[in-house]
Amino acid sequence: VKASHGSVRAHNERLVFATVFDSGQVSRADVARATGLTRPTVSDVMSTLLERGLVQEVGRGPSTGGKAPILLRVPADARHIVVVHLGEFAFRGAVLNLRGEVLTDVEVPAEDLYGEEALENVRDLVRRLVATADRPLVGIGVGVPGLANTDTGTIIESVNLGWRDLPLGPMLQESHGLPVYVANDGQATALAEHVFGGRRTENLFVVTVGRGIGAGVVLDRVLYQGDGWGAGEIGHTVVVDDGVECRCGNRGCLETVASSRAIFQSLSDGPPESPRRSLATTLEAFSSGDSKVRQVVLEAGRQLGAALAGVIGALDIHRIVLTGPVTAFGSAWLDALRESMASRALQRLSGQTTVELGVLGEDAVLLGASALLLTRELGLKLPPAAPENASSPSPDLALTAAGRPGQGGARRSEN
Amino acid sequence: VKASHGSVRAHNERLVFATVFDSGQVSRADVARATGLTRPTVSDVMSTLLERGLVQEVGRGPSTGGKAPILLRVPADARHIVVVHLGEFAFRGAVLNLRGEVLTDVEVPAEDLYGEEALENVRDLVRRLVATADRPLVGIGVGVPGLANTDTGTIIESVNLGWRDLPLGPMLQESHGLPVYVANDGQATALAEHVFGGRRTENLFVVTVGRGIGAGVVLDRVLYQGDGWGAGEIGHTVVVDDGVECRCGNRGCLETVASSRAIFQSLSDGPPESPRRSLATTLEAFSSGDSKVRQVVLEAGRQLGAALAGVIGALDIHRIVLTGPVTAFGSAWLDALRESMASRALQRLSGQTTVELGVLGEDAVLLGASALLLTRELGLKLPPAAPENASSPSPDLALTAAGRPGQGGARRSEN
Repeated sequence: VKASHGSVRAHNERLVFATVFDSGQVSRADVARATGLTRPTVSDVMSTLLERGLVQEVGRGPSTGGKAPILLRVPADARHIVVVHLGEFAFRGAVLNLRGEVLTDVEVPAEDLYGEEALENVRDLVRRLVATADRPLVGIGVGVPGLANTDTGTIIESVNLGWRDLPLGPMLQESHGLPVYVANDGQATALAEHVFGGRRTENLFVVTVGRGIGAGVVLDRVLYQGDGWGAGEIGHTVVVDDGVECRCGNRGCLETVASSRAIFQSLSDGPPESPRRSLATTLEAFSSGDSKVRQVVLEAGRQLGAALAGVIGALDIHRIVLTGPVTAFGSAWLDALRESMASRALQRLSGQTTVELGVLGEDAVLLGASALLLTRELGLKLPPAAPENASSPSPDLALTAAGRPGQGGARRSEN
Repeated sequence: VKASHGSVRAHNERLVFATVFDSGQVSRADVARATGLTRPTVSDVMSTLLERGLVQEVGRGPSTGGKAPILLRVPADARHIVVVHLGEFAFRGAVLNLRGEVLTDVEVPAEDLYGEEALENVRDLVRRLVATADRPLVGIGVGVPGLANTDTGTIIESVNLGWRDLPLGPMLQESHGLPVYVANDGQATALAEHVFGGRRTENLFVVTVGRGIGAGVVLDRVLYQGDGWGAGEIGHTVVVDDGVECRCGNRGCLETVASSRAIFQSLSDGPPESPRRSLATTLEAFSSGDSKVRQVVLEAGRQLGAALAGVIGALDIHRIVLTGPVTAFGSAWLDALRESMASRALQRLSGQTTVELGVLGEDAVLLGASALLLTRELGLKLPPAAPENASSPSPDLALTAAGRPGQGGARRSEN
């Protein structure tokens, strides 16, 4: 939806396209009513959109007196998008259509990738995905572990990947001639849970708990990224005085007491197992009632609950969503967290706050990157999926119908 | 600025009025440009505003080729407003004009007021203020200690005043036939520091530290009040396990270690002095280097700094403002706070965050109530005062030119 006859024209095209997309099926008259544009303007813009294949006619709707109106919709495959999640163990990428259906899915092991090599792998992954796309692409969305400036596309810092002030967005934009959106992975996850998580609330705080701990904040239905793009960086707030040394260099950070890394370190004496095996082993011991394991895991939950009490106090958010590998410890862990949070916050506040598990599993970052592209690039509001969607899975709907953490989704992922 | 010919007309009147107000002085042509309204519409609306005394002509501006345009402005006294702050030691009220100048100022001792009696005193105070007003009133704004629903005007709970689900707004509205806005005092303070604090930043976190500790959050230049109107209620987050009992019933809340109450309790063995005397005495001992007092006060600062580290992690806000009586301990206390905050937050985040003292002193809540009225009732954006204002004080400007805390303002107030 590019400008062709000046900015008013471009604005109208965007508005009409978004209205058709968000409505599902709609007549020209309804679009005129919804947008405030005149009928002739809507018809004119619609002709352009039809020519470009961005909308299509799908028959006639019920008559409201006169001739039955022609209905239009945005075909799911009118455009495709490329999204990438730079996870700790793998770089995953996918080509999606406008309804979030996965058309191609690629994964590259990334546990040892760093610096220049990591960058080359990202560029290569994007190149492969762009090459498979057989429709015009809207753009590229990338979810990154670390601080990312979504306006400029710069990775301010990613400790995991050894990047600092890396203009990843501009680089990919130059290679492919497409808009590129980068965002922190925890922020992308929060946006995904807000948009695709089944119900939308005004405000939402989403915490991803894995080897690291990061969060994302949605306020007044918009992703809030902070003055320096670091909103949700709760993992490195010190919660234990003179605590265990953290990978950030400080001591006693939340990550040192509540992450999967912290859990494994508390439990292990010998050389660390591979993180994947550690999660599987620990989950098994936890389920079979190993008292040392239960104690360590529940204490990790309590520590996270204490940190969330502070969030409730500052923001009075009534809905907190937890996601990531550690959520696989399930309801006992969650109860410990809730109890600790409630005992450390004003009852009047915590009593109204629900803490739930996320529903998107390891696809959350990819979906968040897609939501960023579709909302910011195309101006879509992305109406929440109807509840039916969850119970009518087609193979292509895997991304939006992903398993709940603890039921497969989380176990397959990083920890 | 009431609707007279339907909602479009009312909207246009509001828009034109706000544009003139926020511009200072402006021509009809400039208003048309700024609002997108046609010249005839602007002229028509302007006639109505002139008739009602909401704007006035103030001479001709520089010619830009043709006839020099007539400039208009909103007279400071076109309308007045009534604002009230229900402080712990006094209920203060004032009649202000549209530029925030104080016309009448009333104070009622309120240390022992509670329940029905407190309510009667508020009603009486408002009645007296409304009676003195010699211009049409825009409305009434009230800053309250406790949880207040600004949409409905209900005081959800004020422990200090013994109120629960009190429809204060509707009660005052019925008595006086005026719009009423109620808000939590910490939130009102944050709005005031944002609007009248000299410079505006996208995001702002303002903490009031006195007998209690409360905060207010401005995000994207709008007061953020939370899902349940409790945003900024940081005083009752537990920060010390099994700590001192708090007036909220819990143990180890931030208030039990960082408020003036906590400081006095740590220092006193005998029966508590009156809070005012305690602050004066403690300040004196602090200034003269009493080591026990310094230790207690600086530890209070460190505890608050630790709590703010959590806020930075969650929100990545680059500007934090501190206000209230405890700020009178000045730079040593502030440095202890900053150091503690920095050592407990990711350097990348805390390194960009400034922590400053507020500039509005004890008038902040009144100014916040006025900002609420002027922005929400009249649609004003309230341009920040030009720097000159601070150095051209007239007696009437006391409210906007109030002393910095620690230089008189805070000492006179509650602690």
